[in-house]
Amino acid sequence: MNFEKVRDEKAAEIEKILYAYLPRQEGHQKKVIEAMHYSVMAGGKRLRPMLLKEAYVLFGGKGDGADAFMAALEFVHTYSLIHDDLPAMDNDEYRRGRRTTHVVYGEDLAILAGDALLNYAYETVAGSILEHPGNEAYVKAFSVFAKKAGIFGMVGGQCVDVMNENRKEPLTMEEILFIHENKTAALIQCALMCGALLAGADEKQAAMMEQAGSAIGLAFQIQDDILDVTSTFEELGKPIGSDEKNQKATYLSLTGMERSREEVKRLSDRAVSILQGLDERNEFLEELVLSLISRKN
Amino acid sequence: MNFEKVRDEKAAEIEKILYAYLPRQEGHQKKVIEAMHYSVMAGGKRLRPMLLKEAYVLFGGKGDGADAFMAALEFVHTYSLIHDDLPAMDNDEYRRGRRTTHVVYGEDLAILAGDALLNYAYETVAGSILEHPGNEAYVKAFSVFAKKAGIFGMVGGQCVDVMNENRKEPLTMEEILFIHENKTAALIQCALMCGALLAGADEKQAAMMEQAGSAIGLAFQIQDDILDVTSTFEELGKPIGSDEKNQKATYLSLTGMERSREEVKRLSDRAVSILQGLDERNEFLEELVLSLISRKN
Repeated sequence: MNFEKVRDEKAAEIEKILYAYLPRQEGHQKKVIEAMHYSVMAGGKRLRPMLLKEAYVLFGGKGDGADAFMAALEFVHTYSLIHDDLPAMDNDEYRRGRRTTHVVYGEDLAILAGDALLNYAYETVAGSILEHPGNEAYVKAFSVFAKKAGIFGMVGGQCVDVMNENRKEPLTMEEILFIHENKTAALIQCALMCGALLAGADEKQAAMMEQAGSAIGLAFQIQDDILDVTSTFEELGKPIGSDEKNQKATYLSLTGMERSREEVKRLSDRAVSILQGLDERNEFLEELVLSLISRKN
Repeated sequence: MNFEKVRDEKAAEIEKILYAYLPRQEGHQKKVIEAMHYSVMAGGKRLRPMLLKEAYVLFGGKGDGADAFMAALEFVHTYSLIHDDLPAMDNDEYRRGRRTTHVVYGEDLAILAGDALLNYAYETVAGSILEHPGNEAYVKAFSVFAKKAGIFGMVGGQCVDVMNENRKEPLTMEEILFIHENKTAALIQCALMCGALLAGADEKQAAMMEQAGSAIGLAFQIQDDILDVTSTFEELGKPIGSDEKNQKATYLSLTGMERSREEVKRLSDRAVSILQGLDERNEFLEELVLSLISRKN
């Protein structure tokens, strides 16, 4: 298996799904729908929907039964990026080498495009539940999805992250781990858990996916810290050194490069060992998780 | 029946429900949960959850089966106010006589508190669906809820409203009606339709509620235009004359005061005649709708 080729093909398939689920660019609200398209179709690894689909396949899921949740999850991820980039938040003008949504469409429409995407994620989920009447797994997946996206998941992590910029004393390691567990890991957990549940996994299996997601998310975020220091603008597609510039306390700044690299490896190994302990295997998913260690952007 | 006393009692009951559904103010993300409480518990007429409950009762609903959707709807309404008030949007420092959320908590936490409330609305809806397994009415209500809150509902209306400020030529009447139908009427429709569906109403009845909601919402918004011109700061609890100050084209500015007042009356009568044409009656709901004509704030 040529991992990178397969991964890129899968990402291209996901792009088609995302486009198919986005609303058409027409009507009085056309401009904000364009902003939704601009931000969703801006490229990226599509890691979250890919993880969702691979967990779905791992637990025996077939066909397009997870497509709506894949799109919805990427919509949630994208809205969080739009709002994160706003002047009142991280004030980033570039992401993935392109101008951010508020730079192109204005702050007001960027706020609304984010709101629209978050809500549209749930419209998409609602449509999927209605298409599978009597299938309680879809309702359970919706419940997990909402929790992991919200105040006890991603948004909760973002809030503590914002405090990082608003106060003088640096964050504690406990707070940093809370941020990573929620701001980043929660949507990875969401992906693996929803994929598993939609394929018919039971609660114990979903809990194992939650643990794997936690390890992957933390590894991913520490790797992000590392790349912010070691990468170049061209590789990363956005300004580097922003954590240091913003005087942000990170896992890396508190523990150093060597310990951070070791932790990324340890967590990835742990995630893979959870995946390898299941009845079935998904080699691509295992490689995908391992690839997070060596990623360059 | 002393309408105002009953209405205030019902509003007080709704406040208890809202408080009960909000997350507890604790944990690392405590500050943003405080901001959620600050904005949700800021008073207001609680019109949307009240309409939802009364529609539920009208169609034979009993007990607390609609409570979660009532709370969720007010959470959506509140998030939209938080984001509307932001400096990049309407830049309002006061609402209902209190400082707006971003003035108290900062722009970044206000954006996140809005995001958190929108998402928490869906966490609340998901919990309610899970509590009523096999009851497809709850899934249908979720689907209506998501559509009316989003790009083809409230957010769609907000987007066109924002265009009003971003461009030189004034909005056309068609665009203004689109704004009112979506920015305001959509959540009223959401209230009446979800209340009806949760009580077991069929699709034809839900469609009648949609029509009534359209009339009520448009009446409500034109009345809002009128109050912006005729009210005082003390009565309204927010700055008056803001539409004129912002050079906003409104139904009122295009048609004049007399025609606007007539239209509010005509639309309210139409809404009430729909309600009176049903098998059962809910006199309080009818009075509530009529009270929108004569409201002072």
